[in-house]
Amino acid sequence: MHSVGKSWLLLTGFVLFYIIYLLFGALVFSSIERPVEDKLRHDMETLKQQFLNQSCVNAASLELFLVKVLSANKYGVSVLRNSSGASNWDLTSSMFFANTLVTTVGYGHTTPLSDTGKAFSILYALIGVPFTMLVLTACVQRLMYPLVLAPVGLLQRSGMEPRPATVVHFVLLLVLVVLCFFIAPAAVFSAVELSWSFLDGIYFCFISLCTIGLGDFVPGTQPGQRNKQLYQVSVMVYLFVGLMMMYLLLRTFHKMADLHGLTTFLQLPRCEESEQDDDREPIMENKYEDQASPYVTEKAASKPLEPGSQPSYNTINKG
Amino acid sequence: MHSVGKSWLLLTGFVLFYIIYLLFGALVFSSIERPVEDKLRHDMETLKQQFLNQSCVNAASLELFLVKVLSANKYGVSVLRNSSGASNWDLTSSMFFANTLVTTVGYGHTTPLSDTGKAFSILYALIGVPFTMLVLTACVQRLMYPLVLAPVGLLQRSGMEPRPATVVHFVLLLVLVVLCFFIAPAAVFSAVELSWSFLDGIYFCFISLCTIGLGDFVPGTQPGQRNKQLYQVSVMVYLFVGLMMMYLLLRTFHKMADLHGLTTFLQLPRCEESEQDDDREPIMENKYEDQASPYVTEKAASKPLEPGSQPSYNTINKG
Repeated sequence: MHSVGKSWLLLTGFVLFYIIYLLFGALVFSSIERPVEDKLRHDMETLKQQFLNQSCVNAASLELFLVKVLSANKYGVSVLRNSSGASNWDLTSSMFFANTLVTTVGYGHTTPLSDTGKAFSILYALIGVPFTMLVLTACVQRLMYPLVLAPVGLLQRSGMEPRPATVVHFVLLLVLVVLCFFIAPAAVFSAVELSWSFLDGIYFCFISLCTIGLGDFVPGTQPGQRNKQLYQVSVMVYLFVGLMMMYLLLRTFHKMADLHGLTTFLQLPRCEESEQDDDREPIMENKYEDQASPYVTEKAASKPLEPGSQPSYNTINKG
Repeated sequence: MHSVGKSWLLLTGFVLFYIIYLLFGALVFSSIERPVEDKLRHDMETLKQQFLNQSCVNAASLELFLVKVLSANKYGVSVLRNSSGASNWDLTSSMFFANTLVTTVGYGHTTPLSDTGKAFSILYALIGVPFTMLVLTACVQRLMYPLVLAPVGLLQRSGMEPRPATVVHFVLLLVLVVLCFFIAPAAVFSAVELSWSFLDGIYFCFISLCTIGLGDFVPGTQPGQRNKQLYQVSVMVYLFVGLMMMYLLLRTFHKMADLHGLTTFLQLPRCEESEQDDDREPIMENKYEDQASPYVTEKAASKPLEPGSQPSYNTINKG
């Protein structure tokens, strides 16, 4: 019980530190980028007025104007909104940006304008990406029992054979994830975002939870959106929990593939990852085999575990 | 030797299929998106001409024009280039897009315009992303011996203790990866891309190899770039090999963290991933402990391996 408590304390600490790290990122990005954005926004307004004030528009002046408009647009500064419009670098938007950095989704609907912002993005992601992976791994590990091990056990108690039970469980988990993290959010997005169809919603969910993040659809970027900040925070929570579920699905699939001998067939690392000795060139094997490399001895230590290199198979056949 | 041959044959098959899958994606994306893009490009040209032909520009007509210009720009269709300019959906560019999808980098500098394109993107990534992970895993696994196990062995033969040897090796590998996959490519990019500074190059390499892919810097998108197709293919190869090395670094770090007890300290799955039994609520444990869940028995099978739950520690202390 002490160990359980310590484990949950550690997880809570991780999640709290994750939120603090996002807030810290938001503050820094906002303070670096907001002045640069304000200047660019002001420059664009002036440019637009100058363009409108000229007596006659010629192709050359239009081209010059458009070059600047498109360049500003690349950084998320649109000439369409007036300069009193919502900033891309207010606290919530900066936190949203920080979140897309550390989760590697990276929509790129807003990007740092200044060199300082770019340098900070690198540093921030350098710590943030591995840390987010750590938090996600820790969360998924705590979800493995209630969402994977216990349901599979339940299926077996209802008289199912172990291997079919894992397949049935995986399919059920997949359906649940698709319903809760793709279909339902897509319906919400297509209702909230005026210009999104249901397909656009599904496309956004898929592109986001695969961490592809193309950025052609980003929630909360419509001008004049109501409760924008609450909405952006909700999307951040959705992204985090969604990524966790995707990782859980992947790990469940990996475990199932192990159990069905798929990883062995494809000669890939199993879920309890032990190096395949076969891959070494024989000459190399002779050269180093008497050596106590820590990684090699680690491998040797795991050897007794594998009579036919598939312990799960054996235990299943016995079960 | 037979097994080694089979293993390399499998890997070659994977890589070949990966290339074929990219080519297939390129062909489909190109055939779906090119006509839509051509139409949009033509429409934008007409719109621009109409805008230029009007006697006097007012704020409302400019706003309407800019809305359409920025909307087209979102799909990578710029009014700046004439309609005979390079397409975003020629075969190489489509392959580049397919590659950013399956590697989850997703720059989003070009995005599908049509609903068919969006639906195909989902299907394509659904198969492509896991398959790319499979290919990368298979490649990294084959690189573990020459790049990790053998060098650590070498360091030990030169009289270094096992644990410091893994740290020295990791630092050396890190320096090598930073030099070959960040510093050198950044220098090349800042030389080839006229508007990129060295920091922009580093920023691009980092944002890409973390699979964030913001898309504010994408190589080969300058108008009139020489040898554009060869350049785009080179960037694709760089991305693939770079991601492989990032994954190798991550796995080496994970193995090193195992060895130094870091994963045990943080209560995370070790590299030979065994579930932490402590995480279960005692009531659940009693409920299911007599049950032969395939995942639970798998855990039980790995138990004898861990006298103090750190086999690597023990073997090292003996060595």
